Amino acid sequence: MTPPSSRIPVAILGATGTVGQKFVRLLDGHPWFEVVALAASERSAGRPYADVVRWRETTPLPEAVAKMVVAPSEPPLPGRIVFSALEAEIATPIEQAFARAGATVVTNTRNHRMAEDVPLVIPEVNGHHLDVLPRQRAGRGWTGALVANPNCSTAGLAMVLAPLHRAFGVDRIVVNTMQAVSGAGYPGVASLDILDNVIPFIGGEEEKIAAETCKLLGDMTAGTFRNAAIAVSAHTNRVPVIDGHTETVSVGFARRVTPDEVRHALLAAAPSDLLRSLPSTPEHPIVVDPRPDRPQPRLDRDRGRGMTVTVGRIRPCPVLDVRLVLLVHNTIRGAAGLAIQDAELLVARGDVA
Amino acid sequence: MTPPSSRIPVAILGATGTVGQKFVRLLDGHPWFEVVALAASERSAGRPYADVVRWRETTPLPEAVAKMVVAPSEPPLPGRIVFSALEAEIATPIEQAFARAGATVVTNTRNHRMAEDVPLVIPEVNGHHLDVLPRQRAGRGWTGALVANPNCSTAGLAMVLAPLHRAFGVDRIVVNTMQAVSGAGYPGVASLDILDNVIPFIGGEEEKIAAETCKLLGDMTAGTFRNAAIAVSAHTNRVPVIDGHTETVSVGFARRVTPDEVRHALLAAAPSDLLRSLPSTPEHPIVVDPRPDRPQPRLDRDRGRGMTVTVGRIRPCPVLDVRLVLLVHNTIRGAAGLAIQDAELLVARGDVA
Amino acid sequence: MTPPSSRIPVAILGATGTVGQKFVRLLDGHPWFEVVALAASERSAGRPYADVVRWRETTPLPEAVAKMVVAPSEPPLPGRIVFSALEAEIATPIEQAFARAGATVVTNTRNHRMAEDVPLVIPEVNGHHLDVLPRQRAGRGWTGALVANPNCSTAGLAMVLAPLHRAFGVDRIVVNTMQAVSGAGYPGVASLDILDNVIPFIGGEEEKIAAETCKLLGDMTAGTFRNAAIAVSAHTNRVPVIDGHTETVSVGFARRVTPDEVRHALLAAAPSDLLRSLPSTPEHPIVVDPRPDRPQPRLDRDRGRGMTVTVGRIRPCPVLDVRLVLLVHNTIRGAAGLAIQDAELLVARGDVA
Amino acid sequence: MTPPSSRIPVAILGATGTVGQKFVRLLDGHPWFEVVALAASERSAGRPYADVVRWRETTPLPEAVAKMVVAPSEPPLPGRIVFSALEAEIATPIEQAFARAGATVVTNTRNHRMAEDVPLVIPEVNGHHLDVLPRQRAGRGWTGALVANPNCSTAGLAMVLAPLHRAFGVDRIVVNTMQAVSGAGYPGVASLDILDNVIPFIGGEEEKIAAETCKLLGDMTAGTFRNAAIAVSAHTNRVPVIDGHTETVSVGFARRVTPDEVRHALLAAAPSDLLRSLPSTPEHPIVVDPRPDRPQPRLDRDRGRGMTVTVGRIRPCPVLDVRLVLLVHNTIRGAAGLAIQDAELLVARGDVA
Repeated sequence: MTPPSSRIPVAILGATGTVGQKFVRLLDGHPWFEVVALAASERSAGRPYADVVRWRETTPLPEAVAKMVVAPSEPPLPGRIVFSALEAEIATPIEQAFARAGATVVTNTRNHRMAEDVPLVIPEVNGHHLDVLPRQRAGRGWTGALVANPNCSTAGLAMVLAPLHRAFGVDRIVVNTMQAVSGAGYPGVASLDILDNVIPFIGGEEEKIAAETCKLLGDMTAGTFRNAAIAVSAHTNRVPVIDGHTETVSVGFARRVTPDEVRHALLAAAPSDLLRSLPSTPEHPIVVDPRPDRPQPRLDRDRGRGMTVTVGRIRPCPVLDVRLVLLVHNTIRGAAGLAIQDAELLVARGDVA
Repeated sequence: MTPPSSRIPVAILGATGTVGQKFVRLLDGHPWFEVVALAASERSAGRPYADVVRWRETTPLPEAVAKMVVAPSEPPLPGRIVFSALEAEIATPIEQAFARAGATVVTNTRNHRMAEDVPLVIPEVNGHHLDVLPRQRAGRGWTGALVANPNCSTAGLAMVLAPLHRAFGVDRIVVNTMQAVSGAGYPGVASLDILDNVIPFIGGEEEKIAAETCKLLGDMTAGTFRNAAIAVSAHTNRVPVIDGHTETVSVGFARRVTPDEVRHALLAAAPSDLLRSLPSTPEHPIVVDPRPDRPQPRLDRDRGRGMTVTVGRIRPCPVLDVRLVLLVHNTIRGAAGLAIQDAELLVARGDVA
Repeated sequence: MTPPSSRIPVAILGATGTVGQKFVRLLDGHPWFEVVALAASERSAGRPYADVVRWRETTPLPEAVAKMVVAPSEPPLPGRIVFSALEAEIATPIEQAFARAGATVVTNTRNHRMAEDVPLVIPEVNGHHLDVLPRQRAGRGWTGALVANPNCSTAGLAMVLAPLHRAFGVDRIVVNTMQAVSGAGYPGVASLDILDNVIPFIGGEEEKIAAETCKLLGDMTAGTFRNAAIAVSAHTNRVPVIDGHTETVSVGFARRVTPDEVRHALLAAAPSDLLRSLPSTPEHPIVVDPRPDRPQPRLDRDRGRGMTVTVGRIRPCPVLDVRLVLLVHNTIRGAAGLAIQDAELLVARGDVA
Repeated sequence: MTPPSSRIPVAILGATGTVGQKFVRLLDGHPWFEVVALAASERSAGRPYADVVRWRETTPLPEAVAKMVVAPSEPPLPGRIVFSALEAEIATPIEQAFARAGATVVTNTRNHRMAEDVPLVIPEVNGHHLDVLPRQRAGRGWTGALVANPNCSTAGLAMVLAPLHRAFGVDRIVVNTMQAVSGAGYPGVASLDILDNVIPFIGGEEEKIAAETCKLLGDMTAGTFRNAAIAVSAHTNRVPVIDGHTETVSVGFARRVTPDEVRHALLAAAPSDLLRSLPSTPEHPIVVDPRPDRPQPRLDRDRGRGMTVTVGRIRPCPVLDVRLVLLVHNTIRGAAGLAIQDAELLVARGDVA
């Protein structure tokens, strides 16, 4: 596709939080998008971003953004696309207000993910789910739109399962996550809870993985989603890692499938020309690493600028069919980076008002 | 049973390594056993233990042991029971030599675990496997004996599966371990490999878990082991934790079993009077913790002085039958503590020459 | 001294926080004291302790305490001694109210530490500062009393400096702390801030170390404190350690002093008979560890049940006179354990009303 | 200066170790240098680099280098410049052999650092020490040359002290390091030694900091070094951090100097035009960060692609004159990156044969 002739103005809701900061960093120098508004809580509104953010990225705060005066979280804001990094507790009415007012809202919050007229999208997995938007606009009376990206663990899992589901039909999986602390935001996980420790529980996460995976891998026909019928058993754990969720997966298929078949299906999964044209699509959305002890979060999370999911240890499973390990950068491919890629796909498809 | 009238002399092979040190600490003040010999490599032999050990336990080196002159690793040594914490690469002939010379060898090394005449024993799980010893002595021409304890991950897993297998018949499991670095010995895992990281691979561990679990949960009749026919799919990972292996498990049974049935079976598992008489048997070999985010290694590993396995999060599994989390102190219940408890059982049964 | 003929009733303010929990654990089975009241915020008052505490100690919650109904933080409470683990923001009027009402308050909070009529006490360092209490009672019109323990870093530092100051006169020190996260309470330090990181700043800590050290090492004559004239330069840092503050110290004396003199002065520092009679005084309040790479927090913090300060690496300093490293268990010797020992000293001296 | 008209061939000794790998990564795409030879131990020689290296960098192994056949560590090798990342135990004769054979050797090993005819160089600090090379060549009978970079802790310290020494005369310092595990190479520090721990000892490090700092800040006249007369008291510690050494420093000057004067001297320190022309010189070799809790290794180590030293918390010192905190990326500014910058300076000055 042809890149947009001028940069599209975008706004960020919840701009001072960790995901909000990640949006700021990833959008710095973005070829298609230009951040023109930052919104945050009443407490921060009216003050320069640099004064209210506790900047935690390892790259410097971009200068243009530093001086921007923070706006309150209500429409109208100048951006045609609005990225939402809001807290789930307050996000629903705010996101809907922006969509009603004409903005294309791409949200990282969980609130609307399972709504029957809201597309939950990973471009490499189910970009066609965006076809639900006309129905959404008609049904809600919105001129804008609302698009969600899945939670961080699910993003990596669905990226890997999608080509396997297409090729063989995934029937059931047992997945165990070992999740980084950045997934819990800031301050998030207390150091007293995680140093020299594992927490084998993350509230709501196992249910989200099960539900979102089935929606992502499901069909959409005539504006209606039909979730995939996959039995998903998730064990979710927090581990002392900064970034990068590691997931071990046992997969059972509709028919007997070998590790070699899985490997080939993953290697064959290449992005379409449309996807390749999106600035955030990595050269290799999935990499199969043949080394026996990979992927590892510290060494592999930044592959493809954090947008590549790495798979390793593809081998037979004595209980289901195939075992493997995957790694996803939870705040990039699993959050802000994915939302930006979703927005790029919306632009490329002509879905942005 | 009646405690032994005087303390039984014991020796430790590989006494300077991490497991060897754990033996020294756990045997300090033991009511039945008295350490009378410490053996190590040629390099250390002939020198006081305090001079050759790099003591890493958090309690002080016991004074009596500190002055003991290290012996070479060959029989005879004064101990009637010999605990082996030898490196696997050299252990086989040494352990056999001691058994041949009349000692009862209890080994933590992997070398003989799957041998068809060597009992692999957890007292709470399969103490009756010791009945194979007459056959072992006869077949090998030994006056002593050789008994093995399982690897650390398997020890915790089999403790939990045993009452479930007895009650319902375990059919298949998917287990994901998150293992502490102490399981790899010293120096073991490099800090550059594990800080801010997870390593999703531990050489040979997945095979050991599968094989040893089936032997531990199997029968023994007429001096012959019949391994349990359980399909075991293990995913093993190293995490930045000092002590304590956390394992998430999905269990499938021969018939449909509910989480409540599992909980009751675990709560009903109480040690026999014989087991209770062993000094190392904890009051509760298995504890079911009802808190939603437990067990956690840093908080729960020392329960029952490291001999209790803690189970939590018992809930339905959408793929198999029941999901749960378990925690085992890998160097106590999973290594030295278990070997000592095995030796106590041997004494209590009258199996020590 | 003669132990009290019956256990003295004590209360804990701020009983649900991390220091409060530490009081509960350390007082469980205490030979002189019996916990009869637990106080916490309005939110918790009226409910059983087990229901409102998020118990973080690795030993089980003592059963007697678990059922105790939490009281509001106001007098009267049944305890003759009241341990305060209150937040500094609210502590001042509450602690004073209890002292006015007749209780002997021993506080871990910073609020009254530098008050000119409040003794700041480490029994091994300056127990005679308690002689100010009559003046305190007279001046404040209290029937009870208020005694403070120093902050955690200072506790370890003053323990080591005291015998040196007595022997040689300490003139100036440069101290660098590497402090555990437990010193910041719960939730305290965010894991995102401390994993793979060092934070070279702890608010107010450097000032506290300077001021409190001079008060602790100072004289008291005729009810008036004369602080020691020691120049204290502190650099305070947070490191990814659970418990145990490590401090490197360069010490300059009034005259030239050698490392050997320092070593001998530390080895010669033995507790008096009165101090020895206190249940919390360890056999060796100070241990000099000769190993070249000690003390280390994970290995040495629990020495003397957390009440011993370990010193190592005593060597010449090219800038001042002598360099050394010390380690203090920050939540035991540096907080709850010290407050309990202070209370024991009050009892032994007959200072408790 | 004019960049070289074609890329200069360089070789790396010890190419498979961690510092060797860092050289490979930093030289990938270098505008002046082209890696043409990789040398390692006999065991690796003759095999492709990709087959013998255990690649630990987070960026992919450069393809051109991956296929390169590893050479033995002896001259001649095609590179005109030879970077040495050899183990100290074997480096001396090998490095000298290359210098004798005409190569310009820039070494990261400690062996020759204090030799009286070997320049120990940080370009921003003491590039003029390279003037000793004619004397070195004459005295040793070499056609090549040997140049050393200081150890990692000293590199950061000397960068900060140099402008202060020039402006005010540094008289004495007390420095406390909190050093990352990558400074110990691979496997280096055992995870059992550093998780939840601090090791207050690094063999030989305190002596190196003292000696090397004085040489770096010293004069060189008529081919003779005159070391600076600075009393250096170093306390060195290992902490659980991957990369980045944090150092707290108390500095005493020849005259009374204020924190503001220090700040201004650091802000005024700008690289010369010659230094600016070197590809590895960062835009700001020293950055003063005004935030109260900075620098922090995880957040600030990558500033200036790892070549910038960050300084913070400049404040008065009650014992000496001024206190501050500095952070240096130990494997870039403190090792491979600095050696490369040294080589660039040699080229720019016309010192490479």
